[in-house]
Amino acid sequence: MTADGARHRVVVVGGGFGGLQAVRRLRHEPVEITLVDRRNFHLFQPLVYQVATGALAAGEIASPLRGVFKRDENVRVLLGEVTGFDLSERRVLVGALPNGDPEHSIPYDSLIVAGGSSYSYFGHDDWRPFAPDVKLLESALEVRRRILTAFEAAEVEEDAERRAAWLTFVVVGAGPTGVELAGQIAEIARDTLHRDFRSFETRAARILLVETADRVLTQFPPRLSQRAQRSLELLGVTPLLERTVVDIDETSVTVATGEGERERIPARTVVWAAGVVASELAGALAAESGAALDRAGRVSVGPDLTLPGHPEVFALGDMVQVHGPNGEALALPGLAPVAMQEGRYAAGAIAERLHGREPEPFHYRDKGNLATIGRAKAVADIKGLQLSGLVAWLTWLFVHLFYLIGLQNRVLVFIRWTWSFVTRGRGSRIISGQERRR
Amino acid sequence: MTADGARHRVVVVGGGFGGLQAVRRLRHEPVEITLVDRRNFHLFQPLVYQVATGALAAGEIASPLRGVFKRDENVRVLLGEVTGFDLSERRVLVGALPNGDPEHSIPYDSLIVAGGSSYSYFGHDDWRPFAPDVKLLESALEVRRRILTAFEAAEVEEDAERRAAWLTFVVVGAGPTGVELAGQIAEIARDTLHRDFRSFETRAARILLVETADRVLTQFPPRLSQRAQRSLELLGVTPLLERTVVDIDETSVTVATGEGERERIPARTVVWAAGVVASELAGALAAESGAALDRAGRVSVGPDLTLPGHPEVFALGDMVQVHGPNGEALALPGLAPVAMQEGRYAAGAIAERLHGREPEPFHYRDKGNLATIGRAKAVADIKGLQLSGLVAWLTWLFVHLFYLIGLQNRVLVFIRWTWSFVTRGRGSRIISGQERRR
Repeated sequence: MTADGARHRVVVVGGGFGGLQAVRRLRHEPVEITLVDRRNFHLFQPLVYQVATGALAAGEIASPLRGVFKRDENVRVLLGEVTGFDLSERRVLVGALPNGDPEHSIPYDSLIVAGGSSYSYFGHDDWRPFAPDVKLLESALEVRRRILTAFEAAEVEEDAERRAAWLTFVVVGAGPTGVELAGQIAEIARDTLHRDFRSFETRAARILLVETADRVLTQFPPRLSQRAQRSLELLGVTPLLERTVVDIDETSVTVATGEGERERIPARTVVWAAGVVASELAGALAAESGAALDRAGRVSVGPDLTLPGHPEVFALGDMVQVHGPNGEALALPGLAPVAMQEGRYAAGAIAERLHGREPEPFHYRDKGNLATIGRAKAVADIKGLQLSGLVAWLTWLFVHLFYLIGLQNRVLVFIRWTWSFVTRGRGSRIISGQERRR
Repeated sequence: MTADGARHRVVVVGGGFGGLQAVRRLRHEPVEITLVDRRNFHLFQPLVYQVATGALAAGEIASPLRGVFKRDENVRVLLGEVTGFDLSERRVLVGALPNGDPEHSIPYDSLIVAGGSSYSYFGHDDWRPFAPDVKLLESALEVRRRILTAFEAAEVEEDAERRAAWLTFVVVGAGPTGVELAGQIAEIARDTLHRDFRSFETRAARILLVETADRVLTQFPPRLSQRAQRSLELLGVTPLLERTVVDIDETSVTVATGEGERERIPARTVVWAAGVVASELAGALAAESGAALDRAGRVSVGPDLTLPGHPEVFALGDMVQVHGPNGEALALPGLAPVAMQEGRYAAGAIAERLHGREPEPFHYRDKGNLATIGRAKAVADIKGLQLSGLVAWLTWLFVHLFYLIGLQNRVLVFIRWTWSFVTRGRGSRIISGQERRR
């Protein structure tokens, strides 16, 4: 209770991993929570690439936020886009409201901002139309449309060279998403679509994985990178390491080596999975509070995840650079577990203060790293334990099913995966969405 | 075999119920089949409205055509839009090819055209943006987006009158699709979203079902229409019978009675499910062959479903008017079973002729009529047997699951339905697709 008897108002911006955990942790406390998101669902980001490859349907990895909190009377969900903050007046400005109102201003006593990140195009936003990413559901569906349409185009294309370009798939970035995506495209060509076409051999498809570093999955120990690379090559993926993308257009990708040698690769399908840039909300918070902003657009927060001079404003997840008690920048990876732990921490800190206690600094518990490459192939690095193959893959499956929100989605995804494993098929292979653009 | 030793070439236009059955019946005959469709999937049309209400995901009622025929080496699938016919040269013109080629011309020995139909807007195509239909997958997803967004808008709308307009849903046309859709929207308001919003009562939503006739489901005997109407009213749907829509804009629908009395109903969500107009391919066939075209744009075919003067060209389904042996127009309903039987008939007729026999005239076997209204409520009229309630509903469930293509889709839909039945929820409630337009 605040002095005037009204309940403490918490506004949470963003219904991703961080925001969702924050609301969950707070909902049984004596607070009024408003969760603001521009989408009406929580998206299980680590599996979005499987929507792009037709392995899963969009709804299976998305959970309506209202449904998640329907039983919590003190949680309100507001659909809208946060356009700014007034930290001195303690208000959040929300635009793009569903009824067409220009803007609402929402008051808060405590604020948690968890706006996430998106892919950076190395400053080349003009590449975006030629190389959609697999971060948002819509762009993942666009990637699916392009992958499937490329095979359709190859089927009617009579010119061998043009057909080869339709059958060349380039994935930019060999982090977990890029690796998983390249592996799945290879499986589509090798198994799923193998008998679907009459005028060409789907196994002739080339899948190229472009990476600036000298190995894939740089977040993992080198030994696991090597295993992952071998698995990829066995699937038919060609890693192009120590190569940087220097140009993309509608029909090709140009890559350069460190020595500046350029190669133009004719390719009609390019998918982007490289570089990270923080949500614009980080910049808005920095401008309002005077906090520092780093090169990736992340705002600096203290050991308790609050903005300097604003103990009532928490920011977390991919959009922040956390500093330790001695001012040192902490190297936290841009992973769901980090955002989830930070969300729970920020919520807990608010609850502690309501009870008159000061919270301990945030401490990240590293639970390890997982990446899957394909059918029964994965790598795992869990507290120094390095796993690969079937054991790592089963761990990956279990962890992802466990963290998926909603029992129905878990059951549906489990069925889809079992089916795919047995039949080597992909259940969700329809080309829909906008008109085909080419 | 034809005289020159090449196999008989059959082109099938349209992968709907008619076209799919035609290919299935022909695939084991000594023929080369090309199936042309502008989409890469067969759509289970009778359940598209359940995608609009979030009960099912899009992919669950769509089956990739290549997947259906992957084991049939003599079946080729071509993704493209049929732009015309050259009946004298026996060629089909196909545009909008996936590789960007302007047009391919496909030769045939026998042709089966099954282009289907779409909703007519009573000549008011300008209403279409304000009142999407639930025929195509994309428009169904647009309807879903609008239904869910309307509730979101009501949550932030402070003006009572404007909020009432957001909570008014108008369905135009009380055929099976309109009735089922109105029933599902009522269930969404009453059960699914009941605890999701904080600033209004979802059960205050008004669902209006506008119909020109004096009863709903005019395809059924009057007794079943009455039962269906009672079920609808119990769910909270208000049928507006003997009313015609005379205007639609972004914020309202205007209806008129037979006496010309007009009423303007403020409503932000309108769904169209009335009137039928044949595919434009009917007109193209009529122009080429000189066959008659009726008011609904349907081309006339003879008792063997062929065009006059063209025994090698079959047309069927919603886009044709079949004439009996004595030239009389047959009254065949625009239902999936009709198209399926016609598809099998046309394919069988081609096979018969290859074996030197002449086919019998087409004969429709009426298997009855089914419509569901909501949870455990349906009506069925099967060879004079009139059923309603749970028995009719279970029949409806069984028949729809049986005709769905693909075991995986059957399992997934069965799970969704069971879940919805138990929890009164709707599994697929995400708002995605284009930007919200209002």
